[in-house]
Amino acid sequence: MIPVNEPCQPGPQLRNWKLTLAYDGTDFSGWQVQPGERTVQGELQAALGRVTGEAPLPQGSGRTDAGVHALGQVASFALAAPIPPGNLLHAVNRTLPDSIRIVEARIAPDAFHARHSAVAKTYEYRVFEERPEPGPAVMCPPFLARYVYALSWPLDLDALQAAAGHFVGEHDFTSFAATDPDLASRRADEGEQRDPATAIRTVFSSHWERRETDAGSTLVYRVRGSGFLHHMVRNLVGTMLDAGRGYRRAGEIPDMLAARARSAAGPTAPARGLFLHSVEYNGADT
Amino acid sequence: MIPVNEPCQPGPQLRNWKLTLAYDGTDFSGWQVQPGERTVQGELQAALGRVTGEAPLPQGSGRTDAGVHALGQVASFALAAPIPPGNLLHAVNRTLPDSIRIVEARIAPDAFHARHSAVAKTYEYRVFEERPEPGPAVMCPPFLARYVYALSWPLDLDALQAAAGHFVGEHDFTSFAATDPDLASRRADEGEQRDPATAIRTVFSSHWERRETDAGSTLVYRVRGSGFLHHMVRNLVGTMLDAGRGYRRAGEIPDMLAARARSAAGPTAPARGLFLHSVEYNGADT
Repeated sequence: MIPVNEPCQPGPQLRNWKLTLAYDGTDFSGWQVQPGERTVQGELQAALGRVTGEAPLPQGSGRTDAGVHALGQVASFALAAPIPPGNLLHAVNRTLPDSIRIVEARIAPDAFHARHSAVAKTYEYRVFEERPEPGPAVMCPPFLARYVYALSWPLDLDALQAAAGHFVGEHDFTSFAATDPDLASRRADEGEQRDPATAIRTVFSSHWERRETDAGSTLVYRVRGSGFLHHMVRNLVGTMLDAGRGYRRAGEIPDMLAARARSAAGPTAPARGLFLHSVEYNGADT
Repeated sequence: MIPVNEPCQPGPQLRNWKLTLAYDGTDFSGWQVQPGERTVQGELQAALGRVTGEAPLPQGSGRTDAGVHALGQVASFALAAPIPPGNLLHAVNRTLPDSIRIVEARIAPDAFHARHSAVAKTYEYRVFEERPEPGPAVMCPPFLARYVYALSWPLDLDALQAAAGHFVGEHDFTSFAATDPDLASRRADEGEQRDPATAIRTVFSSHWERRETDAGSTLVYRVRGSGFLHHMVRNLVGTMLDAGRGYRRAGEIPDMLAARARSAAGPTAPARGLFLHSVEYNGADT
């Protein structure tokens, strides 16, 4: 006997996805979708739509600004399509611009959210050391120019290191946060666990290293923390570079933090040298 | 006594300059000035004008197409400004886009001409080896995508090497030259010593090597010759890659050369992997 009153067909089973992404941010207006602008989030959403017929808005671990790159941005979204993760990775990569690549795709627990579940983030900032003289000029190769901040004055690694050390621990980073009032709401977007209205963040580690390559030497700053305010890493770097070139002393940094005023700290380093390196989650959440 | 009839002041002494340039060709419509297009030659001319007040059209060792890069393009031109070479290098680099850099500047003999004086050129072509499976996917990082041709099928280095060997020596390279009739006149621009109307060129060396990096492995082809026809290196590479993936045999290349027909050879590899590596001159000329 054929049942004539079958129950409604259940909706397709949604699965929660976690993607890890690398991108060259130079030619995008940042991560977040904006009308009329080319953004990483928008390109990813469109590519998912082309492959699956579904176009959920991928939620990032946080926004990255125009020109900021990522080695390990994380995005989450739900899909009904029962596509295996390896197939989704390859199919979406084939349709994404070359400047964006999914480096890992997996199914995550339903509760996983790229932003809300994040417990730590690491950023990297790269400074290319140009040397106009003496001897043969060392200048930033055109093939690195999008990915480094090229500086032509000598930088003292010890001074940079001393400055970096002052940021470790729990601090109020108001002096190192963007002051643009339109951007204040972004604070909640930077992988926050705590009350987004405060500027208190914990930096777990903060240090520089010099990497020598055929093309010249690069100073790389790596900072790992509970979360970061808008422009915070670029403001930390701009301030440390002032110490590295002798404009300010590393020992002034505690006073800059205590001032809780953007004007107390140094300039904002350019976006091009900044990479979102990785985002960490509790093992149980992913 | 003050002479009242001084001879006319002589015109300023022109000096002949030789610049060596590196550039990322991605965002330029090639080397050569074209109305309404952003070109390397046009950017260099404009930068020289900003620094010296003179704007000679720099003569390149040859044209590079849109998307083709240079590690050591050479340009020559005459200037009246008595600026020391090191000062010109730094001043012009400060006003050039980041994607173009003068790597060397010197005064050359009056007879030196970047194109006419060239005796050999070396090109490099870079292929990134993607590996979709098995194991963790290896894909072209977004930060390399502008500078390599990324391929996801296995390539046999021995077959590439065997193919490369067939090009060494003096050959008629008609089968490997662009067939676009509008471009035929370009043959004379590619660093020619001989009658530009023939397609006979001498390849001095031609070989591949695999370079392992953190990001993955890259196959690098390097070819040095007396001169190159338009699209010649990209056509050699496209043909060798067909051999490397097993579509054709390296042993077919002598017949391709003998056919003197573009249709006998393989496809044109994309511009993005191609670098003008260096240009050689007789010591006496530079």
